[in-house]
Amino acid sequence: MSPALADYTQKIIAGDLWSRPHLSARDRSIVTLAALIARAQTIGMPHYFNVALDNGVTPTELSEIITHLAFYSGWSSAFFAVEVLKGIYSARGIGPDQLPEEPVEHLPIDEESEALRAATVQENFGEVSQGLVDYTREVVFRDLWLRPGLTARDRSLITVSALVASGQQAQITYHLNRAMDNGLTQAQASEMLVQIAYYSGWPSAFSAMPVVKDVFADRRKRAGSAG
Amino acid sequence: MSPALADYTQKIIAGDLWSRPHLSARDRSIVTLAALIARAQTIGMPHYFNVALDNGVTPTELSEIITHLAFYSGWSSAFFAVEVLKGIYSARGIGPDQLPEEPVEHLPIDEESEALRAATVQENFGEVSQGLVDYTREVVFRDLWLRPGLTARDRSLITVSALVASGQQAQITYHLNRAMDNGLTQAQASEMLVQIAYYSGWPSAFSAMPVVKDVFADRRKRAGSAG
Amino acid sequence: MSPALADYTQKIIAGDLWSRPHLSARDRSIVTLAALIARAQTIGMPHYFNVALDNGVTPTELSEIITHLAFYSGWSSAFFAVEVLKGIYSARGIGPDQLPEEPVEHLPIDEESEALRAATVQENFGEVSQGLVDYTREVVFRDLWLRPGLTARDRSLITVSALVASGQQAQITYHLNRAMDNGLTQAQASEMLVQIAYYSGWPSAFSAMPVVKDVFADRRKRAGSAG
Repeated sequence: MSPALADYTQKIIAGDLWSRPHLSARDRSIVTLAALIARAQTIGMPHYFNVALDNGVTPTELSEIITHLAFYSGWSSAFFAVEVLKGIYSARGIGPDQLPEEPVEHLPIDEESEALRAATVQENFGEVSQGLVDYTREVVFRDLWLRPGLTARDRSLITVSALVASGQQAQITYHLNRAMDNGLTQAQASEMLVQIAYYSGWPSAFSAMPVVKDVFADRRKRAGSAG
Repeated sequence: MSPALADYTQKIIAGDLWSRPHLSARDRSIVTLAALIARAQTIGMPHYFNVALDNGVTPTELSEIITHLAFYSGWSSAFFAVEVLKGIYSARGIGPDQLPEEPVEHLPIDEESEALRAATVQENFGEVSQGLVDYTREVVFRDLWLRPGLTARDRSLITVSALVASGQQAQITYHLNRAMDNGLTQAQASEMLVQIAYYSGWPSAFSAMPVVKDVFADRRKRAGSAG
Repeated sequence: MSPALADYTQKIIAGDLWSRPHLSARDRSIVTLAALIARAQTIGMPHYFNVALDNGVTPTELSEIITHLAFYSGWSSAFFAVEVLKGIYSARGIGPDQLPEEPVEHLPIDEESEALRAATVQENFGEVSQGLVDYTREVVFRDLWLRPGLTARDRSLITVSALVASGQQAQITYHLNRAMDNGLTQAQASEMLVQIAYYSGWPSAFSAMPVVKDVFADRRKRAGSAG
């Protein structure tokens, strides 16, 4: 239908993007899947679920990525992904024994930083929707984020990717800082933007750039004044 | 595919969210459908169309919800919903006799508030797109909003839900005020945010919160200075 | 399912919108397809691909529209469109001989304006993601935009339509100015907003209006001070 599109796909995406430095193929798989699931773009999912498994993302991690994105992109986005993943697991012979059994043992929480987060959100939004503030604390940060199937750094990478891909600029500052506190480097964040530009379009990446720029600058300033 | 997702769905969504106070199951059905249709998330629609019918939303109301969202989420989003609804109506034996026949008799308009709305939009945007300003007045506010199949309060609830679900923050202030003028309470608006967090993702709800907060505060101030 | 929706579709969309002045049926086809592809709304695509071909959009142009939107709406959005277009081409007997063969000869570039664009983006975002800045220059502006299958004016119309349809307000200022530099008139831009209101929903069009208003005003001011 479009020889040019086939050409770009082969030369730039397959031949260049995925082998760029600073972000591993495993991380690129995670960023790509987060971008696709956040926008419910089922057409790319079969290929990129397989790419993720080939690049070392485990079935447990895929399952956790989808669960994580149920909260960050809505329940139906997760269900679209589950439908596609069913076919992949069946084709690859991946069964329930390779998935985490409930209940899991939660990772320890950083009480100090969670207390700060919870207090800020309570003060800002308690009177707007106490229900949402409560679920955010109890279900999202004291449960979902502590599940052991993904590292905190990977959960952050998934979250920020979904935010950029779906144009949720207002939520990037908190989550990119959290991601970098969780070990994501500036070079990795820069490459994440490149990856998302291709999979969610240039505008999502460009609309995120001023926010990312401010986060980078603010962290430099804070680091500089820390001594 | 994801035991954790199944677990959250059963415990939190089925077991808790839908029975929370302040927003009825009927209203939650409407909010959920608006969120799904606004993002064309067909995968959740069959279940939630049935839930809506079971919770007392009538076939006429469902038909009007879809028509209303054609304007607020685009024609194709409405057509995706129509395709799904066909299957539901056929399975439940709901025929054309249960749907409103055209033309309907329109509800009376509040000329004063519509004149104010129309004048503001004309002044702000008449020179940008007189065509859009005209359609907004003639087709949206002097026709669609006056159709008798839904109360003004329900049309507002659907509109605000769609705006929050699709990240259209700039349009929330006007429509949330209109919703509350039409009878939506602050407690219901708060719970609407909770409901949308699950069905469209936390970021949509959190990006709406500062706008909702300002609307609540502004209405309190106006109420306080009214005496 | 919804007699009212059928009624609006027939009377307002088919009977009125498409025959409005200032934007040709060919241009309306392009705007509509860009809006649908940007949001991956496959359900409307078969009809509007046919409408586009009937209105004089060539197979080469359709192929280029999809390739262009791969960059502006993400790779998967383009692939959804390719899947639909396959069926249309097969039904209409359009074969590969009617599509542009790779490689094509690129149109000449306006070096001065590209140098200005590149320098601005480099200064603003070079330290945020040099990779994205590089791809933007080399692949997007020195390759994609110079492909001969679409005029610069049509590429701009497609780009702005996709930005408005997907709520990417922050990117509209640059691209609407570029569109008008490329020959899009103010009356055409106004009608583009009307068209997108119907196909992507009122909120996308209304959220774009303040940005479009500023671009129109700024260009009038610059034109006024040019003498």
